[in-house]
Amino acid sequence: MGSLSAMEFVDNTLKLIDQRQLPNKFSFFVCKTWQDCDYAIKDMVVRGAPAIGAAAAYGAVLAAMQYKNHSGADFVNLMHNAMASLSKARPTAVNLNWAINRMLNVFDSLDWTKPEEAGNILKQEADCLHNEDIEKSKKLSLFGADLIADGARILTHCNTGFLAVPGPGTALGMIKAAYGSGKKLSVFADETRPRLQGARLTAWELLTEGIPCTLIADSVAACLMRDGKVDLVVVGADRIAANGDTANKIGTFALSLAAAHFRIPFYVAAPLSTIDPSCATGNQIKIEERPATEVTMLDGIKLAPDGINVYNPAFDVSPAENISAIITEKGVLRPPFSESIANALGKNK
Amino acid sequence: MGSLSAMEFVDNTLKLIDQRQLPNKFSFFVCKTWQDCDYAIKDMVVRGAPAIGAAAAYGAVLAAMQYKNHSGADFVNLMHNAMASLSKARPTAVNLNWAINRMLNVFDSLDWTKPEEAGNILKQEADCLHNEDIEKSKKLSLFGADLIADGARILTHCNTGFLAVPGPGTALGMIKAAYGSGKKLSVFADETRPRLQGARLTAWELLTEGIPCTLIADSVAACLMRDGKVDLVVVGADRIAANGDTANKIGTFALSLAAAHFRIPFYVAAPLSTIDPSCATGNQIKIEERPATEVTMLDGIKLAPDGINVYNPAFDVSPAENISAIITEKGVLRPPFSESIANALGKNK
Repeated sequence: MGSLSAMEFVDNTLKLIDQRQLPNKFSFFVCKTWQDCDYAIKDMVVRGAPAIGAAAAYGAVLAAMQYKNHSGADFVNLMHNAMASLSKARPTAVNLNWAINRMLNVFDSLDWTKPEEAGNILKQEADCLHNEDIEKSKKLSLFGADLIADGARILTHCNTGFLAVPGPGTALGMIKAAYGSGKKLSVFADETRPRLQGARLTAWELLTEGIPCTLIADSVAACLMRDGKVDLVVVGADRIAANGDTANKIGTFALSLAAAHFRIPFYVAAPLSTIDPSCATGNQIKIEERPATEVTMLDGIKLAPDGINVYNPAFDVSPAENISAIITEKGVLRPPFSESIANALGKNK
Repeated sequence: MGSLSAMEFVDNTLKLIDQRQLPNKFSFFVCKTWQDCDYAIKDMVVRGAPAIGAAAAYGAVLAAMQYKNHSGADFVNLMHNAMASLSKARPTAVNLNWAINRMLNVFDSLDWTKPEEAGNILKQEADCLHNEDIEKSKKLSLFGADLIADGARILTHCNTGFLAVPGPGTALGMIKAAYGSGKKLSVFADETRPRLQGARLTAWELLTEGIPCTLIADSVAACLMRDGKVDLVVVGADRIAANGDTANKIGTFALSLAAAHFRIPFYVAAPLSTIDPSCATGNQIKIEERPATEVTMLDGIKLAPDGINVYNPAFDVSPAENISAIITEKGVLRPPFSESIANALGKNK
């Protein structure tokens, strides 16, 4: 399981585990063009903030391969357009911008008199980014594991394991590292409507790892916290503002509210690339709204009457005051987050 | 729409709208025996605390018809067994006990030398109960409508309209009465996992009534409250303790917590028959746990991996301190509920 990865770049294609089909079907979605990759990110073939960042980086590689017979300004324009599109495939996770900016910096630093070389050079950069992400995930998992006591009963939301993150994961990475170190623990996995990443992906991943897991409807979580059945909550993040406000999968805010009310530690696990210092607070984070059919349909089955209006935000923002700590590859950041985040980013430069 | 009813007793059968099929298919489930009725309650062909109470009352009528050729102690025993089973078809809604106790009182007050008469006499009692429920629903809907201001944006959970309650409903009854009186209003309907009564039933009922409605995943509700988009929350109830603690559909507790946090009025609408004075507090209310497949399967589609453990409570308890008022057919009860409930029940006797 440890060697499974959400993506692999082979034979000049980006091979993604098709996460839309799990756990019923384990299959691959093969991207031959950057447009395939753009579609895969938009339609959530691949999801999870760090994973879509890495996938977009490989999308830029695919673009360079597609356009290798173009030249000069034409080539540069096509590449810039492709990368601009990839960086906007989904709006909330800042890792997309972060990854594409990194690819763009490499691209723009070179003079493309030989466009056929661009693919290889960008491929090296994407591999670096991907491998560095794996190392970050391992490091933050170990830092986070220290926060999990032997016997802990952990609540988590959405999916934050190897499908969402290059490497073992963020929140799930912590859990797997703690379990791997010999601690007994058990996990409550929110099913995570509407896309059911908790039921479809997290439950599957934990079951495969042999980690005790109980699946619940999202609205059960607050009751478990009230009843003293949860020792800590840990989630991932899609974008973290400079003050620690954290955008994550819809439902996270309600969890953070209940955890704060019942004084249960609430942890966010994310690489520093998820922090967006250009957002002073969560108010500046754009929240993606996704199609109504995610709520009204399920695998072709109609769940609601035709014509019903739907509000389907994919994310919400948990305020910094509800967050006990942010676990990164540079260590555990504690409140006040404005300071600890600035310090961590400073060290990172 | 006003004349639609979840149940009708015709041709010596109890004809139920099959709520498991809505909104995709409008069909009837016909109960010819009390066992059919028992199954229909257990499998949620009919659901909603007042509706299952009335259905169980008709179940007792079916039993009397089935056993009319028995006599003496044999007849009485068969009837007692049937009614005991019906009263336990589901454990949380007290209306089941309330309705069956009422039928039992009538049954036990008569001397059954002519069992063939029992069916007619019990049928009269069940009709009385059903018709009284309809009147109570209308009255509480009018009391509740006064609490809804023109322009109000209302959040509701699960389904509490004519499918759940003989008459216009409880929480939805209030909303329909307010709308019918000319107030502009809009409703956010939680989809209500795992059975999706909000998406399947409430959205359908409001759409049919022409009341503006927006469907949301359950975990969106807290965000709407935080963002000032909800003026009041109103829900039904399955059992209310003497102190006002209220058992209702799973997810209600989390809503009550968020509403209290953001100081948004949180109303419970229920007939007095939903109050169980034998429960001093919510701690005494038995919470039904339903099958794992409600969470892991949907109309034959697998949503989670085989073998995953599931915790699937059908209800939760919202503490009295989170409840602004309880709307009954005798008027609006305010805190302290221990007093206002005792007064209302006293007046009722």
